[in-house]
Amino acid sequence: MCDICVINSVKDRMLSRRDFFKASAAAGAVATVGATTTPAMADGHSKTVDMTHMFDETFTTWGGEPGIAYDQAFNFAEHGFNLYNLTINEHSGTHIDAPLHFSADGMSVDEIAVENLVCPLCVVDIAERAAGDADTMVTPDDLNAWISANGDIPDGACVAMHSGWAAKARTPEFRNADDAGTQHYPGFHIEATQMLLETGAASIAVDTLSLDHGASQDFATHYAWLPANRYGIECLAGLDQVPAAGATLVVGAPKTGRGTGGQARIFAMV
Amino acid sequence: MCDICVINSVKDRMLSRRDFFKASAAAGAVATVGATTTPAMADGHSKTVDMTHMFDETFTTWGGEPGIAYDQAFNFAEHGFNLYNLTINEHSGTHIDAPLHFSADGMSVDEIAVENLVCPLCVVDIAERAAGDADTMVTPDDLNAWISANGDIPDGACVAMHSGWAAKARTPEFRNADDAGTQHYPGFHIEATQMLLETGAASIAVDTLSLDHGASQDFATHYAWLPANRYGIECLAGLDQVPAAGATLVVGAPKTGRGTGGQARIFAMV
Repeated sequence: MCDICVINSVKDRMLSRRDFFKASAAAGAVATVGATTTPAMADGHSKTVDMTHMFDETFTTWGGEPGIAYDQAFNFAEHGFNLYNLTINEHSGTHIDAPLHFSADGMSVDEIAVENLVCPLCVVDIAERAAGDADTMVTPDDLNAWISANGDIPDGACVAMHSGWAAKARTPEFRNADDAGTQHYPGFHIEATQMLLETGAASIAVDTLSLDHGASQDFATHYAWLPANRYGIECLAGLDQVPAAGATLVVGAPKTGRGTGGQARIFAMV
Repeated sequence: MCDICVINSVKDRMLSRRDFFKASAAAGAVATVGATTTPAMADGHSKTVDMTHMFDETFTTWGGEPGIAYDQAFNFAEHGFNLYNLTINEHSGTHIDAPLHFSADGMSVDEIAVENLVCPLCVVDIAERAAGDADTMVTPDDLNAWISANGDIPDGACVAMHSGWAAKARTPEFRNADDAGTQHYPGFHIEATQMLLETGAASIAVDTLSLDHGASQDFATHYAWLPANRYGIECLAGLDQVPAAGATLVVGAPKTGRGTGGQARIFAMV
């Protein structure tokens, strides 16, 4: 961001915050915003979109079991403060797949370059097709259509599949398992993944539980993408609130040593 | 961020990424950057500073015990992929203190408004004094000196204490406990905290283990600040690499339901 942009950005934010805070103060507390989208500035020039699902034991996971367990070690009534010890499956909630998740010695989540965590966001929208076919995938044709409309995939980009699946989170339709236990939701076709490996994209993202489509038996996209030291994002939210091109994604990946992934807080600056 | 700023920002980043990626590709992988500071753009106009410590069982905690335990549920050699279940103390590593941490019914970490997670950063530098006095604190005089130099504390701001303590992480000097077990490091004096409660600041941050100074017996700052539905950041890194005013902090707070805090990935856009 250029200096003048930072200055203008902060000025705009300060102005809008002043109004925001006055309203909040009147209510006796800093306001809590429940929606996933929250304008960072009130004047309409800019907004911050929260791309993260709230994560608790009700959030649907790939394996079907809760992804988090809470152990309240201290409580306010008895100890004067609240504190949980949490046991968490790294690959649940809105989370990162680090290269190490599907490789013997790829980068762990703390090793992903910061340059690749603040990056251009490319949204490939297959929601209309996915509404009629849960097994559909992002194909090279979808990528070529995006490129025709928006130009080349920028180096360092995150290429995200918007399938409309985020709205199904916390319902059985998110895993969408059939009687045999096979899951059905969209993902990246291996040929699209191979095409993206020829670009400078640093990451791919999905609004479903897996970079591969749910019915995949070979995890071809995982095994092609992650060992190339690129990373993935699963269970991304908010893709219906960002443009196909032009947003900057800020990926708050956890900086867990040796981590194969983990829960991330992700914003899009639009 | 204004539209033209986004466009310029993305353009700049794309140009620098292209060079960056070419170099990376030559090495056969997306480069890993070990330093906490990483320029997001190569032309010097802007950079992203990583304000987050790497977190593993060697990271110093307030209580002295490891803040994280790793259970490798799946390993690549045997299962074809790596995955940990992690047991984590919410208040270890670079982390958030949500209002709920020190109140009966304050906001949990997932409820902190997005507006207050992308915010102006005000850095109050007491490192020189702290080098000679581990029990020193941020006082109203320090805040007034900052205001004289930089203007009013912006609404929504994060006011951060830079004491130089981040360099001591993973050493006994970070907790700096005396023979009686009392810890010694800087924090916010209650009078400074009360002064900030009169401003629109949304959060305070420290590069130490506690918003209160280490020797505090009453946690006066915790009990004044958090129940007012403002939040805190502890163990922040990178404060030696950002200006006193003008940076934008992006706080990737975890979106854990009912969470009293938790590990965060934090960037400063300079």
